[in-house]
Amino acid sequence: MSISMHSASAPVFMRMLGNLTQWLDKAEAHATARKFSPEVLLAARLAPDMLPLSKQVQIACDTAKFCLARLAGVEAPKFDDTEATLDELRGRVRTTVAFVQSVPAAQVDGSEEREITVPRRAGPLLLKGEVYVKNYALPNFFFHVTTTYALLRHNGVELGKSDYLGAF
Amino acid sequence: MSISMHSASAPVFMRMLGNLTQWLDKAEAHATARKFSPEVLLAARLAPDMLPLSKQVQIACDTAKFCLARLAGVEAPKFDDTEATLDELRGRVRTTVAFVQSVPAAQVDGSEEREITVPRRAGPLLLKGEVYVKNYALPNFFFHVTTTYALLRHNGVELGKSDYLGAF
Repeated sequence: MSISMHSASAPVFMRMLGNLTQWLDKAEAHATARKFSPEVLLAARLAPDMLPLSKQVQIACDTAKFCLARLAGVEAPKFDDTEATLDELRGRVRTTVAFVQSVPAAQVDGSEEREITVPRRAGPLLLKGEVYVKNYALPNFFFHVTTTYALLRHNGVELGKSDYLGAF
Repeated sequence: MSISMHSASAPVFMRMLGNLTQWLDKAEAHATARKFSPEVLLAARLAPDMLPLSKQVQIACDTAKFCLARLAGVEAPKFDDTEATLDELRGRVRTTVAFVQSVPAAQVDGSEEREITVPRRAGPLLLKGEVYVKNYALPNFFFHVTTTYALLRHNGVELGKSDYLGAF
């Protein structure tokens, strides 16, 4: 009983996006307690040429969304990247989780050798399904999720490793 | 042909640790060009109560090391966490990769249902092998690898997403 393509991707994304939603809740509570607008956090960056928090959440969501869509060979829903509040970002996460959940496991399983095309600025990247999940989708997803966490910690939100990993 | 326990873990760790080594090379070049001691970077933190870069690299290494050791049921080599230079951190990464590489795939495969014990401050965490890899080891590994990257970017080292993901 080895790990199926669906089980290596969808539940991992859903679990971490659930954790991330709780960080956004804590970010909101922190802003309220400190009397600053929570929207300030959406513009926070770790470096001037790194993307702000709102974009980190959007890309984490899109990485999960496109991973399932590409593995299953279905169209991914289009999101407009207009989220301007923590609540709208939580909505983006919910819509993403709903889509990930809607893709049948049976349509994803068996996609180890499927040719996946990832559009990139330098030209499309062609990868086999298994390589795509392990070396592109998961690392990219965790990059944006962790950067979101790091941005909140850098800005004083009280989070710890157990918030990151979630409950067991 | 689904994903084996070894293939879901060891090659992912080795690939990302290889990428991380190159970030440390760029960090060294950056420090030299800007005429500051590269060791300054080892003490960098994103928040006063977050661990410094040296510790982020050590924990990324240990997460990979313990994951393979626990799945295979072998003793993990003990490292003393004494690295004080970028070069010593690169050495730590090399030693870790050598250990990960030394664990036979056949000893790791089939560990989906194996009972894994993760020592934690709050008491040991008991997880099945597959849950351990997907919800603990990989998220924790990517946390410390991404935080290392974020610390370097925050301190002006010129890195981009392609340095993070590595070559395809």
